[in-house]
Amino acid sequence: MTFTDSLAAAWRQNDSLLCVGLDPDPAKFPAGLKGRDDRIFEFCAAIVDATADLACAFKPQIAYFAARRAEDQLEALIAHIHDRHPGIPVILDAKRGDIGSTAEQYAVEAFGRFQADAVTVNPYMGRDSVEPYLAHPDKGVILLCRTSNPGGSDLQFLDVGGEKLYERVARLAAGDWNTSGQIGLVVGATFPAEIARVREIVGDMPLLVPGIGAQGGDIEATVSAGKTARNAGLMINSSRAILYAGKGEDFATAARVVARETRDAINRYR
Amino acid sequence: MTFTDSLAAAWRQNDSLLCVGLDPDPAKFPAGLKGRDDRIFEFCAAIVDATADLACAFKPQIAYFAARRAEDQLEALIAHIHDRHPGIPVILDAKRGDIGSTAEQYAVEAFGRFQADAVTVNPYMGRDSVEPYLAHPDKGVILLCRTSNPGGSDLQFLDVGGEKLYERVARLAAGDWNTSGQIGLVVGATFPAEIARVREIVGDMPLLVPGIGAQGGDIEATVSAGKTARNAGLMINSSRAILYAGKGEDFATAARVVARETRDAINRYR
Repeated sequence: MTFTDSLAAAWRQNDSLLCVGLDPDPAKFPAGLKGRDDRIFEFCAAIVDATADLACAFKPQIAYFAARRAEDQLEALIAHIHDRHPGIPVILDAKRGDIGSTAEQYAVEAFGRFQADAVTVNPYMGRDSVEPYLAHPDKGVILLCRTSNPGGSDLQFLDVGGEKLYERVARLAAGDWNTSGQIGLVVGATFPAEIARVREIVGDMPLLVPGIGAQGGDIEATVSAGKTARNAGLMINSSRAILYAGKGEDFATAARVVARETRDAINRYR
Repeated sequence: MTFTDSLAAAWRQNDSLLCVGLDPDPAKFPAGLKGRDDRIFEFCAAIVDATADLACAFKPQIAYFAARRAEDQLEALIAHIHDRHPGIPVILDAKRGDIGSTAEQYAVEAFGRFQADAVTVNPYMGRDSVEPYLAHPDKGVILLCRTSNPGGSDLQFLDVGGEKLYERVARLAAGDWNTSGQIGLVVGATFPAEIARVREIVGDMPLLVPGIGAQGGDIEATVSAGKTARNAGLMINSSRAILYAGKGEDFATAARVVARETRDAINRYR
């Protein structure tokens, strides 16, 4: 099944547009696991098992693993998701970007080594830096478009001949680049007006929306601006608010409560 | 010693503007090592030892290691360079780019785990995505500006209010962003006119220039366009032409011959 199909199935099956971000920082782990780089898999797997029926996708952020020599735990985590929760796609948040021959290696990293269903990619180097990922037509390729951070405006909001740079990226992504219909875009929840503008440009393309919760994005505004005519099209990401909802042994239960609240809050505005 | 200082010392000591790129692809390894993912360190260390007195920097490309679960060999390789060839800085070519909290993890990956002296970073997400690297003032932060691939023009060559996007990146990098004088830029050898334009904007800032050799960039044009008033300022990268110069047991000797020819060809135009 392609990434696009499994995402659509997960939207329906779990009645959810919630993407659970896995950004494991052992300094924030609950008592018993706190500070333990060797327990990252255990922590994340507990979160995954507690939230899998509430999510449309999981999004591990590779930097948190790479900083701690924990690539093996990331491999095990993605295998665990595929094994225990088939049908929930995994987006490797890596924001890779390089020329063709090197991008091919990054595609092997994401899709071969880690067995991710989709990967985030930076568009700054242009079409031939994206093509090696597109060569895997069953996989999702989610390009940075309008990011949720304050500095996102430094380049992405520049006017390029009557449109903003992020709008140009959206047009390229929805046009010539999207030969197999596998591209999605990252658009931050902190900018609902831009989510709406991107939705106008890209039709039904899936949008990965970080920035609710800790980053302050508004759920109602995000859903209203970003949903498709079929009331889907969004992967609204929450990481820290879910992962660190509890500080004790019941952290997975606490994560489940917040994940359900977030899913339901999103659904109220669909 | 800071990255900037050790780079300047290596320029002088080895009379060289040559950066040796380490993009190890076991399929291209010489007889005896060919296809062996477990011999990446051995291959790269032989290249390093054969070329260290001819280079101003080494640039391992992390994707080639990550695609093969060889991060441990990359750690060992950088430790080997620091141990055997102190004074030659190591640039980790990772082209990372993410928001602050995640970028901090990538900085730990590059500077803590891998002990790199500098890292390449993608500027698309703006200033706050670059700051976590700048928080290490002794390290180099080399931003993508005008990349050597054909698709580089898709975004980088767009007009943004009377200048191109890559010129804006150069102005930001040379201005407010460069609080500790540690920023460098990637400018492809395939575009000498743009190298000259970037040099005008950024003064003496170090430029990392890929694209000679396999990618077709011209050495004379690159040096003329990019050298500073003090006949330095460049890290002209060659990877494949050096790494795969020989196909037999003498591959390191063959690499040394090509590295010396390349260094000398560069020096003829300084």
